[in-house]
Amino acid sequence: MKEDITRVSIELFEQQGFSSTSIQHITQALGVTKGTFYYYFPSKEALLMDIHQHYIDDLLLRQHKIMENIGTFKEQLTKIVEMLIFDIGQQGSYARVYFREMRHLSEDHATIVKEKRSLFRLRIEKMIEQGQTTGEFKAELVPKLMAFAVLGVTNWSYEWFDPDGDMTAELLAAQYMAFILQGIQS
Amino acid sequence: MKEDITRVSIELFEQQGFSSTSIQHITQALGVTKGTFYYYFPSKEALLMDIHQHYIDDLLLRQHKIMENIGTFKEQLTKIVEMLIFDIGQQGSYARVYFREMRHLSEDHATIVKEKRSLFRLRIEKMIEQGQTTGEFKAELVPKLMAFAVLGVTNWSYEWFDPDGDMTAELLAAQYMAFILQGIQS
Repeated sequence: MKEDITRVSIELFEQQGFSSTSIQHITQALGVTKGTFYYYFPSKEALLMDIHQHYIDDLLLRQHKIMENIGTFKEQLTKIVEMLIFDIGQQGSYARVYFREMRHLSEDHATIVKEKRSLFRLRIEKMIEQGQTTGEFKAELVPKLMAFAVLGVTNWSYEWFDPDGDMTAELLAAQYMAFILQGIQS
Repeated sequence: MKEDITRVSIELFEQQGFSSTSIQHITQALGVTKGTFYYYFPSKEALLMDIHQHYIDDLLLRQHKIMENIGTFKEQLTKIVEMLIFDIGQQGSYARVYFREMRHLSEDHATIVKEKRSLFRLRIEKMIEQGQTTGEFKAELVPKLMAFAVLGVTNWSYEWFDPDGDMTAELLAAQYMAFILQGIQS
């Protein structure tokens, strides 16, 4: 049931926004009582926080595995870009709600999520910095700016890319890695 | 007065979102009556549309001038990226409201804005396509995907770049053009 509430809420938040979606909308769409909702989540904000936490914790875990298991920094960066692009099909709605509705979290919750988001970005920054030390990446680039550039390319895809359209996620990932690596590698 | 209403509204929309900002919030912040607001805008949605129109029309005009006056496609692309990065200081709030609040436009208004947004992107796509014909840009890249990549890098900057922080817009534009051009040019 918790998963059902989350899934339906993400659909509704994506279509009509967090502010315009009431708990009643969510329970009506599922055909359950408000009591059922409150059994799992104390408030709509708590549900939004759960969505944010789940999304970023999962990304951080998978990022960590890539960094542990894969050799060169170029390969690590490639795997992370692939992960983000291939996620669009499965996690697209999740990610769009995550990007758009951040400001509706309470201040304490927002702080926690922002720290985790920063960690994901800082790991990429560190990866680029280390790749500069090994000579894989161009020394003249500012790692901080390049990390934002890589995330700009991938995150923006969540706004426009339709995995069911005429271009495949494989093509998108291959083109974007070619583009990014040409821009970054020595 | 129209400019004052627009300026204050953009500040409020950016801080608390379009849905949570009432016409009363706007008129109170300005110390004017609601009548004054309605003299210039029939509704809050009309004001949002005015913000969207003004922003995209201005970008399209400046893009057109760049395309008319500047020689190679590489130079045109450079000028457009510079325009978008240097705008962050002056037009940052405008752009963030523009990106975030699109879904609150009426269907008819959204259609008009989407067409103009597409035109801006399609001109970049065409620029990359033509640059492939002249041999300036790599033939194996899909122009549509590259246009989105360039806009991803620049648009994402509006979310995080602080022109008053420790990095200048000049550095950002230079780094991003080096990154993008390495990725695209032959």
